Amino acid sequence: MDSIVVFSPASVANVTCGFDVLGFCLDHVGDKIIVSKSNTPGVHIASVSGFRVPVNPKQNVASVAVEALLRDYPTSTGFEIEIEKGIKPGSGLGSSAASACGAVFAVNLLLGSPFSRRDLIKYALEGESLASGERHADNLAPVILGGFTLVRSIDEIDIIELPSPEDLIVSVVHPKIELKTSYARAILKKEVLLRDAVRQWANVGALVSALYTQDYRLLSRSLQDFVIEPTRSMLIPEFDALKHEAISSGALGFGISGSGPAVFALSQGQKTAQSVLQSMSKALDPLDLDFDCYISSINQQGVRVI
Amino acid sequence: MDSIVVFSPASVANVTCGFDVLGFCLDHVGDKIIVSKSNTPGVHIASVSGFRVPVNPKQNVASVAVEALLRDYPTSTGFEIEIEKGIKPGSGLGSSAASACGAVFAVNLLLGSPFSRRDLIKYALEGESLASGERHADNLAPVILGGFTLVRSIDEIDIIELPSPEDLIVSVVHPKIELKTSYARAILKKEVLLRDAVRQWANVGALVSALYTQDYRLLSRSLQDFVIEPTRSMLIPEFDALKHEAISSGALGFGISGSGPAVFALSQGQKTAQSVLQSMSKALDPLDLDFDCYISSINQQGVRVI
Repeated sequence: MDSIVVFSPASVANVTCGFDVLGFCLDHVGDKIIVSKSNTPGVHIASVSGFRVPVNPKQNVASVAVEALLRDYPTSTGFEIEIEKGIKPGSGLGSSAASACGAVFAVNLLLGSPFSRRDLIKYALEGESLASGERHADNLAPVILGGFTLVRSIDEIDIIELPSPEDLIVSVVHPKIELKTSYARAILKKEVLLRDAVRQWANVGALVSALYTQDYRLLSRSLQDFVIEPTRSMLIPEFDALKHEAISSGALGFGISGSGPAVFALSQGQKTAQSVLQSMSKALDPLDLDFDCYISSINQQGVRVI
Repeated sequence: MDSIVVFSPASVANVTCGFDVLGFCLDHVGDKIIVSKSNTPGVHIASVSGFRVPVNPKQNVASVAVEALLRDYPTSTGFEIEIEKGIKPGSGLGSSAASACGAVFAVNLLLGSPFSRRDLIKYALEGESLASGERHADNLAPVILGGFTLVRSIDEIDIIELPSPEDLIVSVVHPKIELKTSYARAILKKEVLLRDAVRQWANVGALVSALYTQDYRLLSRSLQDFVIEPTRSMLIPEFDALKHEAISSGALGFGISGSGPAVFALSQGQKTAQSVLQSMSKALDPLDLDFDCYISSINQQGVRVI
């Protein structure tokens, strides 16, 4: 096998109460990554389309991630990476995570799978940290492993695969303004009130419990963010209206996807998720602003060969 | 039925990573509460033994809790409460929670059970908040419901009963110095680093997952406290030695029980728990300090009639 094409999906990180630790994988939206073996040693970006990302392999998250992998598995083979970006950078939908995960997943297959899916998270993290300026794996873990994940630690990488009910459906609205992850992170306060932190970890624990027991009402009650949303919501056009529309149309919960500006809602069943999506779109209609809308179940598979 | 005797057990709150939200119920150690109907209206403390607690019904957590219940269920019947304290106040083992829970549990039975166990938490909370100066239910919930509990919210009381494996055994060492809950709370910083809060809620989520999946290794990794232990451990004699001894004897995790000075370790199986307890005792041996030791499984029943 000299060439491989993979689909590396978008993802929603943080999931309202779980800043930097929770995430789930989306379907349909994602990057297409084509990796080909080459006689020229090293890793090269052969092409980029869809959205602009760096073609310099030292600055591209995909090639940086692959280079990290190759340091642990040296080879004389070179690799050429073609990236068809389906996820806009700075959208809050794990654009850099998708590229980094797709590239290491493809290269691992071309090498005969010396690494497990879990192993690959470490290498993708090298690429991702280039994009955000900090190391975090809350987008990477669901893209590599699929489903709903909890990153317990990245010092020693420790990822927990959580169950997620099949009829939990995601509605995403992505207002097309660019929001740099590094900026969305820089505005956060370095300290939080202990009282708010306690409410936040109570909700994280409750959300994990709700996923195991498929308790939708508990899931709904736990989708609250006392720590990050008050600051970051200011960066998102019509945040309050979007939230109000989602909840009053029957969504179980609502939140900023990653660092935004995309927002998401979780609903039980396709029908509710559709009506939630329509209501959220309505909230943005008065603005002179382009936006995308998606409906997705939680993608249990993650990055895959196509 | 004119009189009832209940056993209201001790409990471990916080459980290392879950400050103010996690707790579990112990066995064997607890308060014995005898409540008798009386022709004299109102709630009276007839006797107190074992350890000293206020006999003034306006200052006693048990009678304050019962009075809260009776405001929602007015009756001309009076109640006399006898309290045999088996849990030292200020031990960190839920002494006030046991008295408050035992009293409302007994009175509810004498009234023909107008309230469910869950309902009683609200009334016990009125008593408990008298003792700690703040409202928190992380000791009350496991005493009333048994087992391992998560308090998601006390604004609107929202308690989750978590599963706990049968062979999870608790070793408790209680150095007999008194530590006022209100003081142990006052020394805490009002703000915490966001970075530490994130690690803490990752661990809370991981611990909840570990309880559902009976993953002892994950349970062990998640029993870390980055927020409270650094401050409160200074109040506990030989804290570092106790922790070192517990972990090196095979405990899955270790922490301060509630606000201390009692400490606890969780182990898989009686045998390990016994050896952990012996090692912890050894750490206190050089001190001229009296201490108690207990071994307990997690009490699934909670407060009960005896």
